[in-house]
Amino acid sequence: MTSSAGPFRIGLLGHGTVGAALAELLPQRAAQIEHVTGLRPEIVGVLTRSRGDFEQILAASDLVVELIGGIEPARDYVIRAMRAGKHVVTANKQLLAQHGEELWAIARECGVQLRFEAAVAGVVPVIRVLQESLAAAHVERIHGIVNGTSNFILSEMARTGAAYADVLKEAQRLGYAEADPSEDVNGKDAAAKMAILARLAFDTPVHLDQVVCEGIERIGPDDLEYARDLGLGLKLIGTAERVDGGISVRVHPAFLYARHPLASIDGPFNAVTVESEAITEITMSGPGAGGPQTASAVLGDVISAMIPPASTPETSVRLEVVADVVSAFYLHMEVADTPGVLSRITGVLGEHGISVKSVVQKGLGDNARLVMVVHPVLESRFFAAVERIATLTELRTPPRAIRVIEEEFS
Amino acid sequence: MTSSAGPFRIGLLGHGTVGAALAELLPQRAAQIEHVTGLRPEIVGVLTRSRGDFEQILAASDLVVELIGGIEPARDYVIRAMRAGKHVVTANKQLLAQHGEELWAIARECGVQLRFEAAVAGVVPVIRVLQESLAAAHVERIHGIVNGTSNFILSEMARTGAAYADVLKEAQRLGYAEADPSEDVNGKDAAAKMAILARLAFDTPVHLDQVVCEGIERIGPDDLEYARDLGLGLKLIGTAERVDGGISVRVHPAFLYARHPLASIDGPFNAVTVESEAITEITMSGPGAGGPQTASAVLGDVISAMIPPASTPETSVRLEVVADVVSAFYLHMEVADTPGVLSRITGVLGEHGISVKSVVQKGLGDNARLVMVVHPVLESRFFAAVERIATLTELRTPPRAIRVIEEEFS
Repeated sequence: MTSSAGPFRIGLLGHGTVGAALAELLPQRAAQIEHVTGLRPEIVGVLTRSRGDFEQILAASDLVVELIGGIEPARDYVIRAMRAGKHVVTANKQLLAQHGEELWAIARECGVQLRFEAAVAGVVPVIRVLQESLAAAHVERIHGIVNGTSNFILSEMARTGAAYADVLKEAQRLGYAEADPSEDVNGKDAAAKMAILARLAFDTPVHLDQVVCEGIERIGPDDLEYARDLGLGLKLIGTAERVDGGISVRVHPAFLYARHPLASIDGPFNAVTVESEAITEITMSGPGAGGPQTASAVLGDVISAMIPPASTPETSVRLEVVADVVSAFYLHMEVADTPGVLSRITGVLGEHGISVKSVVQKGLGDNARLVMVVHPVLESRFFAAVERIATLTELRTPPRAIRVIEEEFS
Repeated sequence: MTSSAGPFRIGLLGHGTVGAALAELLPQRAAQIEHVTGLRPEIVGVLTRSRGDFEQILAASDLVVELIGGIEPARDYVIRAMRAGKHVVTANKQLLAQHGEELWAIARECGVQLRFEAAVAGVVPVIRVLQESLAAAHVERIHGIVNGTSNFILSEMARTGAAYADVLKEAQRLGYAEADPSEDVNGKDAAAKMAILARLAFDTPVHLDQVVCEGIERIGPDDLEYARDLGLGLKLIGTAERVDGGISVRVHPAFLYARHPLASIDGPFNAVTVESEAITEITMSGPGAGGPQTASAVLGDVISAMIPPASTPETSVRLEVVADVVSAFYLHMEVADTPGVLSRITGVLGEHGISVKSVVQKGLGDNARLVMVVHPVLESRFFAAVERIATLTELRTPPRAIRVIEEEFS
């Protein structure tokens, strides 16, 4: 199927947001992929509505990536690729939720891989974890936030108190919702994803039509106010669980108690919780959509189809391991409550080029507790200042420094 | 290496908490594993300090599971097993953080798999995700809570306001801390895990000795009070990140801003966040220790060594997909503010056998807003009651029902 050395040839079906992102990402990562797999991946053909010939691309490829979406012609192409002995990677949830059993049977029959991590929750690796890490686990329940658009809308309604229709408009303006958002807000998109997860978790056929489904269109600002007052989350939740010898698969809005691992998942993120007696529970979260993110999930599948499993490749670089880095700090001091103590301490910090962000001082009889947070500084320089401060006669106990991790994504 | 049908023979080295849990879990899951892989796994020999012969077990095994811990004789056994052409699954973080390059080189040379998911963060599938999903990602940073004992202690200090020494004693009593907890609380255990993660993420050799390390022994109730006042988390954080063309790998206590995905990880749980430009960030969390949990991670590795990658096996059962399930509900009603309205509504609920958990009523001029939460009930029965309530003349708008997910693990 694949040649044992040289290029690894990829046929790309579809060139929308994800397809274009993949075509951009692949050359950037090709050298690293060659290091890991021994093969250099390259896109040998792209099929769009207006250009490319499927048969020609198929003949030239070792693996086909299907990013067309919808049922036909995607289904026909995927089947023809597998029948031709090619591995297939797809992000097509609708196809798998409606024709999964047929496609998986053909993959087994033809001895090819059919991978679909990007079909559910984007870059969140829930498919791989269910198929591999938990291949023999007795899964009891899956809860998922698997539609980023509806989660973004509910998060914004909770944050601003605005009405559904207004937040939807804002989401469309920001690109978090499509011009026609129906499938996202009525739960149908999430239902397809939950059908796939239920199939894998419970090892039983599950079709999209069997998923009970309710959307977020009727949620009002009142409901989110109630949730806030009681410290609950209100989310569009997908559930797949065992009940009385059968299973239930459904998507609907739900209040979550505050400590539920999905209650704090905000904005366009996706997250999935898998429960099983032996593992207790695993939660995974990350971006559920986006071109580069979904393309990364597709690329992870492509690489897995290229490599023998679980080799830890030789290291490719020898990076210096640096001990002295930049960090913000909290500094806790017990001091004598005398005039000038604060100025002596900030003086030492200033001499070391350290800038103070905030100070809290609490009197305790003759003593005071002084807590400072300083802006990011090279650690060695900060610790030199702390060593100096420790020698001040006003210090009652050794100062205590703890690093502060500030928001890095914004 | 492995026979193409029949049993898959596992040699088990070590029979402590995890080994015993694996010996119990494997027979329970053997039928499902046989369904997935076509091979029935069985433990053919167990080596402990007092019984078993390594050479004999090795000769009888297709795969060796190493759960002895420490460097020797674990290192010697793992090398001899790989040299004999056997796959190895290990949970030994010390061994990999100190001798990983040697062992991975031997695995490549001998063409066998060396898998180690259970060595870092227990059942949280971070090793698999780094090695497979993110094999070609340019990882920028990893943050991890990878020691459950220290996280449990900090969570309890935050919750109760108690001092470190008292909480440690309580953790020992509850079995969350060992009699000698040094490696857990001084950061050394976490350092070994971060060395392994850094090696995989950055594709460069990282030895345990290169990890900068500070423990939680000096954290005081004051520090946690400060964290609570400012809405911060205070955690023992492992960091591996790129800095100026090199990398930094370290473990130390740190304050986290409230929305950091690790800030809400409490108790003995572990969690890891992986950041990269293309994927933004993925967070994974779950139990970091525990016999059955760690044994599940080991078993996931064993199964992966048995199967060809990414086959979606034929379904083994046809479970009924049930539409009508039990759920708690929130019920939102706008009603005329007249005497008796509450009693009429609760009357309908009572007739349907539905029990009310809480009621909030707010006056709005002539109208009132009534929010009820009811105890779990079969959905069809609840919706029948709602249909009846909708016909009451006091209702101003159709009632709105939203499901409530209550705490399931406690």
